[in-house]
Amino acid sequence: MKGPTIKEILELKPDGREVIVSGWVRTFRSNRFISLYDGSSAGKLQAVVDFEKTDEDVLKKVNTGTSVRIKGKLVQSQGSGQNQEILVDELTILGECDPEEYPLQPKKHSLEFLREIAHLRFRSTTFGSVFRIRHAISFAIHEYFNNHGFFVMHSPIITGSDAEGAGEMFRVTSFDLNKVPLGTDGKVDDEQDFFGKETNLTVSGQLEAELAAMGLNKVYTFGPTFRAENSNTSRHLAEFWMIEPEVAFADLNDNMNLAEDCLKYVIRYVLNNYPDDIEVLRQRRLEEDKTKKEELRSTDLLDQLKMISEEPFVRITYTEAIDILMNSSHNKKKKFDYIIESWGTDLQSEHERYLVEKHFKKPVILTDYPKDIKAFYMRINDDGKTVRAMDILFPGIGEIVGGSQREERYDKLVSRMESMKIDTKEMWWYLDTRKFGSVPHSGFGLGLERLILFVTGMSNVRDVIPFPRTPKNAEF
Amino acid sequence: MKGPTIKEILELKPDGREVIVSGWVRTFRSNRFISLYDGSSAGKLQAVVDFEKTDEDVLKKVNTGTSVRIKGKLVQSQGSGQNQEILVDELTILGECDPEEYPLQPKKHSLEFLREIAHLRFRSTTFGSVFRIRHAISFAIHEYFNNHGFFVMHSPIITGSDAEGAGEMFRVTSFDLNKVPLGTDGKVDDEQDFFGKETNLTVSGQLEAELAAMGLNKVYTFGPTFRAENSNTSRHLAEFWMIEPEVAFADLNDNMNLAEDCLKYVIRYVLNNYPDDIEVLRQRRLEEDKTKKEELRSTDLLDQLKMISEEPFVRITYTEAIDILMNSSHNKKKKFDYIIESWGTDLQSEHERYLVEKHFKKPVILTDYPKDIKAFYMRINDDGKTVRAMDILFPGIGEIVGGSQREERYDKLVSRMESMKIDTKEMWWYLDTRKFGSVPHSGFGLGLERLILFVTGMSNVRDVIPFPRTPKNAEF
Repeated sequence: MKGPTIKEILELKPDGREVIVSGWVRTFRSNRFISLYDGSSAGKLQAVVDFEKTDEDVLKKVNTGTSVRIKGKLVQSQGSGQNQEILVDELTILGECDPEEYPLQPKKHSLEFLREIAHLRFRSTTFGSVFRIRHAISFAIHEYFNNHGFFVMHSPIITGSDAEGAGEMFRVTSFDLNKVPLGTDGKVDDEQDFFGKETNLTVSGQLEAELAAMGLNKVYTFGPTFRAENSNTSRHLAEFWMIEPEVAFADLNDNMNLAEDCLKYVIRYVLNNYPDDIEVLRQRRLEEDKTKKEELRSTDLLDQLKMISEEPFVRITYTEAIDILMNSSHNKKKKFDYIIESWGTDLQSEHERYLVEKHFKKPVILTDYPKDIKAFYMRINDDGKTVRAMDILFPGIGEIVGGSQREERYDKLVSRMESMKIDTKEMWWYLDTRKFGSVPHSGFGLGLERLILFVTGMSNVRDVIPFPRTPKNAEF
Repeated sequence: MKGPTIKEILELKPDGREVIVSGWVRTFRSNRFISLYDGSSAGKLQAVVDFEKTDEDVLKKVNTGTSVRIKGKLVQSQGSGQNQEILVDELTILGECDPEEYPLQPKKHSLEFLREIAHLRFRSTTFGSVFRIRHAISFAIHEYFNNHGFFVMHSPIITGSDAEGAGEMFRVTSFDLNKVPLGTDGKVDDEQDFFGKETNLTVSGQLEAELAAMGLNKVYTFGPTFRAENSNTSRHLAEFWMIEPEVAFADLNDNMNLAEDCLKYVIRYVLNNYPDDIEVLRQRRLEEDKTKKEELRSTDLLDQLKMISEEPFVRITYTEAIDILMNSSHNKKKKFDYIIESWGTDLQSEHERYLVEKHFKKPVILTDYPKDIKAFYMRINDDGKTVRAMDILFPGIGEIVGGSQREERYDKLVSRMESMKIDTKEMWWYLDTRKFGSVPHSGFGLGLERLILFVTGMSNVRDVIPFPRTPKNAEF
């Protein structure tokens, strides 16, 4: 029953051959021209109906959203805008679509409206392209790591450890919340819960990926992560996807090379394989920009993607970045909301964007941050005050990758954990890797949705994941 | 810093060239032969130390588990069992490993013991191979679907709907369980929870995949799913991974063809790309089988995988299967725990295994089950009593795939839901796809861990996922 897709048909020679194709009607003009799509690509196929040969009752049902099966001849198109079209011999209605009720009409809908009908937005031109690109990026990531000898590592989603402290966690429980069992101390008796203790949704698979890299050399995670933070912004989701590679015997330079090479590979893959979808999204952003003041308009999407895939990223230390920022006229004229006054301060998004968008006009890799603003597992430098961290900053996005060389020296790691009040007993398994054949190793985390935002030119993270989870919203 | 992996070195010509390699010591014999592994493949590299040229203090530290960096010449090996070896010029200890403390010694450990040190078991020969095969299978699945025009679809992990009723769910909450807020009725006030309502961990991404297929044509999910069932068996996990393709304009035959073709592709991919790991696991099972009675021994792993990848699967209806089972001497002699007495009864694992392992000696696809033992979304046949379901049964595993053609007819779907007491109001979004341009479509669910069990020849599902989650166990 399954016939060729429109993507496949558009690759055929329009030599009058008979084809059978199924899809949905985007528009129906002059009782004659059906613009048909099926989601297999950004491509549309024009089907030309001979209304004299076609049952009137059938024609009446051809509306935007109607699903049809068409049998006809594939010929060179007479009109402009397409190479081939189908001369319809047989038109079958598969599923009707009442134009009075169907919310997706062939007019411009706001992204906010489409978010409310996320179950239908896959069918819109914009979201068709967004979700095909989401696939392209995901696949390119798997392909890149597979080609480079990495093994995927499915780190656990339900976790019994809260050691990293990367953010607020969701509790996972099999208790009926109306009858939570209490212990003799009057507090929740976690031992009676499904896993015999308190469990939460993971905030990162990194620590488990480190364990795996100590046996498999090069691994990466690709999975969902969670934050129970009450942030209602265009950048935050309660559920999002992360890719976390981890490499044994690798230092921070290897780590930067890997991240830069991987990002470039993925962007080239999308440009080479999904040019039509990129063009749809490029046009969308151009349209959107027309409503904006000139200084707020974005770079052309295609130019931006090509630049990233070709130009080397800038690599500077945090200390160098602070110098640039402190000496900038922006800082001196107090144009930043947060004025940089001294070394050691954490960078705000405005500072990152200044470096990337104004100063260098390129992606920037910042390294060697002060240890006090970074996580316990990062390798401490000989200066005793900075760590082998690296963040990759992208135009319009800010931090897209955060990584580090890990502290592989047992004593230094333990003393760091102790000074940061991290329970070394609970983390016995993590410390074991530093006890038994410890090796230098490095890794990073790449936020999938942030990368998709960048590649698609969309501006709200809720528009690049099928069904966003945010405070007070878990629809579908 | 990152040098070539052992996998890469084993592909080089042993022409005396200088190489630098890092890895862990598997064994150290006669103060001379280091068997080195690094996880990049099942391959081991022999390094030959000249103990007269090497510092005695360094040699003392070379124990099982020690990590080292070796500089030396890659030459043709004199010994048997390997083609090349390294004549060591420089031996550097990266991380020591105290043999008194290190739990992973070069002797046979039980799988149960290794499960308790899941953070270290990646380093064992067996688990190195298991987790490389887990990667191979995962990648082959992505590659297969990408090659066939599918788009990956990340369906939500946190879900607000409990409509499918596929099993017990875990609750996800941001409440402090010691202070759950109550409403005026004295019950938990779910509106105050993070998402403004009760949310759970997903048991399946199928319904959301159907939504996506209605816009993108061919999609597949690849993600974690959850069951809060108190089953402590070798087949059950509370957290496991599923692949759920969904195809628009496809009927049950397309669905069976897709599933069979995909399974064969994946198995061929593993056989072609990971022969050494399959050999490790084949030998492991042969060893294990030696301790068993002859009638309980398994088929040779390689033969079994080749058979599956080459022979067509048997396709019969449930009704035909019931006939075979009812007429079998096994049933007549009451050798089944559950005697098949009439049409309509659900098949037990023993019946499935009889069909696959005794009767056909091949994988079997069973179709057209009685509607009363299947889910609401399966397309009802014209007989009014069976549905277009299909289950694929594998030797030694039982059900590895479960799928169906979906009910695309609005009225029939609604009446089925009503008779099964499924809330049609809560499922408005699912029903919308049958209202607006509905199309025939089909899909299935493939249990990743079951497929890995089959391909690796392991027998406990806890041994094919890095960190298993089971009742009372969420370690690491």
